[in-house]
Amino acid sequence: MAVNLLPAHDLLPVAGVELASGPAGIRYKGRDDLVLVHFAPGTQVAAAFTRNAFCAAPVSLCRQRLAAGKPIRGVLLNAGNANAGTGSAGMQAAVQSCELAAEVLQVGSDSVLPLSTGVIGQLLPVEPFRAALPKLQAELAQDGWLRAAKAMMTTDTVSKGFSRQIELAGRLITITGIAKGAGMIRPDMATMLSLVATDAAVERQALQSILDSALAGSFNAISVDGDTSTNDALIVAASGAAGGAAINVDSAEFPLLQQAVAEVCQYLAHACVRDAEGATRFIAVEVSGARDVAEARKVAYTVAESPLVKTAAFAGDPNWGRILAAVGRSGVPDLDISGIDLFLDRVCLIRGGEPDPSYAEARGAAVAKQAEFSIAIGLGRGNSHATVWTCDYSYDYIKINAEYRS
Amino acid sequence: MAVNLLPAHDLLPVAGVELASGPAGIRYKGRDDLVLVHFAPGTQVAAAFTRNAFCAAPVSLCRQRLAAGKPIRGVLLNAGNANAGTGSAGMQAAVQSCELAAEVLQVGSDSVLPLSTGVIGQLLPVEPFRAALPKLQAELAQDGWLRAAKAMMTTDTVSKGFSRQIELAGRLITITGIAKGAGMIRPDMATMLSLVATDAAVERQALQSILDSALAGSFNAISVDGDTSTNDALIVAASGAAGGAAINVDSAEFPLLQQAVAEVCQYLAHACVRDAEGATRFIAVEVSGARDVAEARKVAYTVAESPLVKTAAFAGDPNWGRILAAVGRSGVPDLDISGIDLFLDRVCLIRGGEPDPSYAEARGAAVAKQAEFSIAIGLGRGNSHATVWTCDYSYDYIKINAEYRS
Repeated sequence: MAVNLLPAHDLLPVAGVELASGPAGIRYKGRDDLVLVHFAPGTQVAAAFTRNAFCAAPVSLCRQRLAAGKPIRGVLLNAGNANAGTGSAGMQAAVQSCELAAEVLQVGSDSVLPLSTGVIGQLLPVEPFRAALPKLQAELAQDGWLRAAKAMMTTDTVSKGFSRQIELAGRLITITGIAKGAGMIRPDMATMLSLVATDAAVERQALQSILDSALAGSFNAISVDGDTSTNDALIVAASGAAGGAAINVDSAEFPLLQQAVAEVCQYLAHACVRDAEGATRFIAVEVSGARDVAEARKVAYTVAESPLVKTAAFAGDPNWGRILAAVGRSGVPDLDISGIDLFLDRVCLIRGGEPDPSYAEARGAAVAKQAEFSIAIGLGRGNSHATVWTCDYSYDYIKINAEYRS
Repeated sequence: MAVNLLPAHDLLPVAGVELASGPAGIRYKGRDDLVLVHFAPGTQVAAAFTRNAFCAAPVSLCRQRLAAGKPIRGVLLNAGNANAGTGSAGMQAAVQSCELAAEVLQVGSDSVLPLSTGVIGQLLPVEPFRAALPKLQAELAQDGWLRAAKAMMTTDTVSKGFSRQIELAGRLITITGIAKGAGMIRPDMATMLSLVATDAAVERQALQSILDSALAGSFNAISVDGDTSTNDALIVAASGAAGGAAINVDSAEFPLLQQAVAEVCQYLAHACVRDAEGATRFIAVEVSGARDVAEARKVAYTVAESPLVKTAAFAGDPNWGRILAAVGRSGVPDLDISGIDLFLDRVCLIRGGEPDPSYAEARGAAVAKQAEFSIAIGLGRGNSHATVWTCDYSYDYIKINAEYRS
């Protein structure tokens, strides 16, 4: 019951990137749960990971491998088991499964990045990888994106993917990304897992810079429940297969590519919220008039993560008292209530800290009962703004999270 | 369905304090919703209020009156309407209703403290006070505590009250308190509303000091949903009717009275959590081995307010991965996972950051399926500790908060 979200469709192949998916039976039965990705030689890779101190073995291993600066030639992704909280045995499982992937890909044993998502605290078995990988290698293909988007799902109800094409210096460039949500989501980072690839040629530093700016307006601006995953990872790969000189931060093409990657990431981040566990509404919390962006983000996140705001949203109730109460506890110093404005979409509820004379409950309710709307808060104390996207809390959020392990 | 909590019973009268309750029809029909409290001349009053910048009119008025240092002779409490977000009209309603109370009590017009709880953002009508107060005045009695505890309830399922008696310098001293929860609860403060009274003679400064220390281990150490109310208030009154010299901070009786008031407040704070909206479990999150108390509280609150920990608790699932993930995102600098221990009651799940070899899922599940248990987290980096009491998130939390206004 994702909010205005179709399953991934029409994902475009990216030259230099091949994918294959299949059932390894790691946790799920009768569905794909393993994805193997192969990058052409020379592919540049940038990444961002969870800032949770309690991060999973695959995250630690990815960090090590990227820091070492060696070529990255593949990704091995499994759903159903996060390989988190598994100690040294978990790290060994991550290393061994990547070795098996490197073997079938015929690449260096430390050139594969592992990504895992699913239950925390259960040892990841290596045997299913050994059994499944040769078949996956044989099926590697550029059109494997759609099936990979499905294979990485856990509590997601629909697969998530998006493609964009732009022209850079006369070349048609493709960017395709896939992601999975759907709970334990807030920055920093908040993707759970996402893989984005382009056939553009991009220098490693420029690619990291493109990723960083895309993050700020996408995966680092959403929250489902305020819980930061142990496994969050976003990987952006640039195969260079489209040819041409590698784009650096001074290239004329740099801002265009940056914008296109940001759009793909924002689509995927929104998709994670639209398909959040139990979500029935998709809400943009827009805070303006803040003294700085940090303040705007603090207010936006406090409102977006307020259980009382989220349960009111589930009811389609324009309960502005709960919104203002969340603003009031957000920790902004010397907050002057009389400077605050509040809108639901274009309906003004509060102006200067008091109910707007023109406001009638029915007008707010008409907005709050929509599947999508914005909560716009003006703080009236500066010129900075920030937007955070979130969803409501429904019975199904409780159901999904109470029953996930059973 | 409060967790191991009986309705208030056997509440002892406090000499010098009279209460009366009745139906004013402010929101609820066919039940008491108004409480009038009368303090004997010379009663000292200390108080603490919400730190939400968006505080209700009654909170602002209480603060003004206490800051002015004039005698406080009564409390006027209503349930069903919080008189918050009501602008200058709300302040006028608070002033006028207190004037009506002062009139029937024949005390100074600014010597009554207003307390309101209920829906935010609806104007509080004054007429129901005018109609109901004369009858309440006529019914003022020292044995009115139990009925007052019921009259102040909103989404509470049981009334909350507790009495203690101690001997101070040969005199039998009584302390009786009542409170209401049950959602939008976390510090600072987190009572919603509570009134505690003693017949001991206490100097104003000493009484404030007793209140402050009681708060730290009670109302400021609980969380239901992380949302801070606009109306939280704790009022502690000392009538002095038991006689004797007024206790000051240097008196031998001071620590004994302090301890007894702290016990009453802790009982009431726990009662708010036990009867939290939809709660099915009562959980103590105990963090030790922290570098300082602030750090211990930060970790304890992050775990206590994690929606994923709370939904797992609802399921009776010893999901230690979610607990460690919350610890990991709590923002403790340089957190070393290998120093972390985790116990559910006396069952060790994690030792030194990894699953304890002796742990078996069935042992953790046996604890997590109890109505009450502790989550004990050792950080292994210092000697400070803190405890926060919380509850789970159930379907009923969503139901209650989605339907509260309808």
